[in-house]
Amino acid sequence: MIDLNADLGEGYGIWTLGDDLALLDVVTSANVACGFHAGDPLTIRRTCAAAVERGVRIGAQVSYRDLAGFGRREMEVDPEELCAEVLYQLAAVDGVARTVGGRVSYVKPHGALYNRVCRDPEQAEAVVAAVVGYDGSLPVLGLPGSVVHRVAAGRGLPVVSEAFADRAYTPAGTLVPRREAGAVIHDPETVVARAVRMATARTVTAADGSEVPVDVRSICVHGDTPGAVRLARAVRDGLDRAGVSVEAFT
Amino acid sequence: MIDLNADLGEGYGIWTLGDDLALLDVVTSANVACGFHAGDPLTIRRTCAAAVERGVRIGAQVSYRDLAGFGRREMEVDPEELCAEVLYQLAAVDGVARTVGGRVSYVKPHGALYNRVCRDPEQAEAVVAAVVGYDGSLPVLGLPGSVVHRVAAGRGLPVVSEAFADRAYTPAGTLVPRREAGAVIHDPETVVARAVRMATARTVTAADGSEVPVDVRSICVHGDTPGAVRLARAVRDGLDRAGVSVEAFT
Amino acid sequence: MIDLNADLGEGYGIWTLGDDLALLDVVTSANVACGFHAGDPLTIRRTCAAAVERGVRIGAQVSYRDLAGFGRREMEVDPEELCAEVLYQLAAVDGVARTVGGRVSYVKPHGALYNRVCRDPEQAEAVVAAVVGYDGSLPVLGLPGSVVHRVAAGRGLPVVSEAFADRAYTPAGTLVPRREAGAVIHDPETVVARAVRMATARTVTAADGSEVPVDVRSICVHGDTPGAVRLARAVRDGLDRAGVSVEAFT
Amino acid sequence: MIDLNADLGEGYGIWTLGDDLALLDVVTSANVACGFHAGDPLTIRRTCAAAVERGVRIGAQVSYRDLAGFGRREMEVDPEELCAEVLYQLAAVDGVARTVGGRVSYVKPHGALYNRVCRDPEQAEAVVAAVVGYDGSLPVLGLPGSVVHRVAAGRGLPVVSEAFADRAYTPAGTLVPRREAGAVIHDPETVVARAVRMATARTVTAADGSEVPVDVRSICVHGDTPGAVRLARAVRDGLDRAGVSVEAFT
Repeated sequence: MIDLNADLGEGYGIWTLGDDLALLDVVTSANVACGFHAGDPLTIRRTCAAAVERGVRIGAQVSYRDLAGFGRREMEVDPEELCAEVLYQLAAVDGVARTVGGRVSYVKPHGALYNRVCRDPEQAEAVVAAVVGYDGSLPVLGLPGSVVHRVAAGRGLPVVSEAFADRAYTPAGTLVPRREAGAVIHDPETVVARAVRMATARTVTAADGSEVPVDVRSICVHGDTPGAVRLARAVRDGLDRAGVSVEAFT
Repeated sequence: MIDLNADLGEGYGIWTLGDDLALLDVVTSANVACGFHAGDPLTIRRTCAAAVERGVRIGAQVSYRDLAGFGRREMEVDPEELCAEVLYQLAAVDGVARTVGGRVSYVKPHGALYNRVCRDPEQAEAVVAAVVGYDGSLPVLGLPGSVVHRVAAGRGLPVVSEAFADRAYTPAGTLVPRREAGAVIHDPETVVARAVRMATARTVTAADGSEVPVDVRSICVHGDTPGAVRLARAVRDGLDRAGVSVEAFT
Repeated sequence: MIDLNADLGEGYGIWTLGDDLALLDVVTSANVACGFHAGDPLTIRRTCAAAVERGVRIGAQVSYRDLAGFGRREMEVDPEELCAEVLYQLAAVDGVARTVGGRVSYVKPHGALYNRVCRDPEQAEAVVAAVVGYDGSLPVLGLPGSVVHRVAAGRGLPVVSEAFADRAYTPAGTLVPRREAGAVIHDPETVVARAVRMATARTVTAADGSEVPVDVRSICVHGDTPGAVRLARAVRDGLDRAGVSVEAFT
Repeated sequence: MIDLNADLGEGYGIWTLGDDLALLDVVTSANVACGFHAGDPLTIRRTCAAAVERGVRIGAQVSYRDLAGFGRREMEVDPEELCAEVLYQLAAVDGVARTVGGRVSYVKPHGALYNRVCRDPEQAEAVVAAVVGYDGSLPVLGLPGSVVHRVAAGRGLPVVSEAFADRAYTPAGTLVPRREAGAVIHDPETVVARAVRMATARTVTAADGSEVPVDVRSICVHGDTPGAVRLARAVRDGLDRAGVSVEAFT
């Protein structure tokens, strides 16, 4: 049993990013942009409605307030302020989702905030405090072993671990940093095979050829290019063919 | 029995507007800015917390997306988009309010949107649809006889009428437009006397000297200047002295 | 001799709109977005640099401050404020253009501002005052007979008239409003033929079949869809084949 | 001979910060906010006009794009993007200033960007490249010995050193970090005396009591509170009384 998650609703006004409807036919969990790095209110509502129609679970993809940088630039935000910003985004998207018959079922930080809370206890605490304050039953989707997962667990929040089928892993089971050669795997067949192996054996072949265990309840796929959507589709088809039950985590 | 409402939390980041704490000691309903014309998430949370501490009711002061113009510039927003924007703001502030022990109990459009929905059925429908979609028990605070009140009532939403003690009224019971001489009343004693008369007799002396009935469950006071806060305080004291029970509408 | 102009650089951060490089190979004048409805500073610089490389003239496509609405929503902006906003945009893009060997050679209002200044003397005055204040030799590109052209001429600014080969015209030589059937012409061959006729005979076939004169020094083409770029390319090729000299106005 | 500089025009729309007119009567150089951390176009124009009326020199106070954080939060901005953003701000304010009879005569980074370019060569290069690209004769105002000053000098830009009369200095002549006790000096008489000593002897009494040389062509004063403006006034009066010629650097 595995979940597939992807970033959705990452347009803004006239601008769009990726083929959301095609991706919604692939995934079981939609990380919906909340308006701070992308996602105007109408896009949020339409994305939530399309997810509800397809039975796809909705998550709040909270981020730094940075439209110009798409939330990809790390920011030294005061924790109290960050907490309020995450809470605001989470509440807004949950409220919008409820009017179309859905609701926010989990939280996944976006971009630079995702990376930051993997290692920074202060910003991780801020994000976790916002989720706890809003609804202490909402899981935080993220990297296994990350600081934000440790902090969330300590505050009683459920955590859900994700893995990346198109990223190289170290023998220690962590991601090979993007700046290193071979960090991203481009061959579709390899990516599909890794996804299936992750879902069935809970392992991944590390960069040194060793087989390492990987804690994975969800696999993250991308949709910001036509090639990305095709790859996501291939991963889904590969999982289906392998008899893996692809469904949202609970 | 009368309610006093005022706009609160209308700062943004480093910038503040008015003495919110002084005003919260005067009013019974706080129209909290939702982030589109003013009100960053931390300001929203602090304003809600301060309101909860004082037993002041929280309303969502929804507006056009216009920080540079403070929501005072009319905009030709598509109704579907406006509806989503109002919903987003309402949900965000309600979610933040709930984490500090409060909740949004009513909706009051701000500035140019307030004026627009007094007369434009299309934008009024959009605002009402957002409120109905979020929580059909939330009253819309506004001008008696306005289009938005008519639309809201038609959709089953409660409506609450407000009056302005510092504004001149026509013999027909409507506000004298701001551009006309004498539209705003500056003498504090007169303003206090009018407020008391509104609360006790449900009438106001019109510009031609006639006494006209005014549908009023709440009186709007202002707080964006030191003089405004003093005047609001005087109105409150005058009502208290006159034995009027100043409390939030239900 | 005819100029071809198009809107360029209308992305923002990660988001793009249209194939700017393909369009820059077609047009002789680039209306560069200035940051208020689209166009972050890096996009502005790259667009200006690409225009300079191809010998395409740069114009400042000034607009309302409205990223979420792409400058397509009319706004009641105070004229003094609008004037300062137009000036700010014009100066910013001119300064950026100069660092890559170009400069702003004309001004074309965008979207809702374009439409508004066609008929509203107050906002037209504000735009014109900004251009006069910055550089009184810069032409304003717009509709012949529009209020902004009249105001500009009255203040001594040069004006340049544009026409639309894909829009229907009334017998009076004005555009058929978009909401009316047949307002936009979709058949590529007809559009190309109209463009050639505009450039060679300075006339257009009106909706009633009559041939009416049209004051045109520039033809506006679009590039926000793949089909639009192909059509723009066809118009350019048609003009070239007809022996029309396609070059920027002076 | 000494210059006094202060941050001016740091309002946004309805919001204001500090008493700009009072401060303009004190200083000889106005660091005008450019719209990214504060400063809408109309505020920029009014601030420039008021500076020109008083013979105060105008500088471009460039910053990160961060209205919500007032440019006080460090951001990991790509250097090419930062360069374009600084250029955009500089050009915009210079263009606005010229329409009221002034022009930008120097550049001073604001807030988090100021601190960052004191130590980070990459972002410092980006800022310097923007200034060089726009006008290689514009000085960069900043801390003596800072990375941005070294980079600027290396690219042939003039640099102007500033000091802070209300900040403690180390025996090495650098600022005591704000987080340390005694970093900010609050006693007005002490601040005035230090300013006079800086201007006349080019020295400052360090935290250990030693007298250390300080490279200072300008002293930075603040204006964001009533107390700050009074202190700035006192510093100016003290300098005048001491016979120091207070005038803008050239």
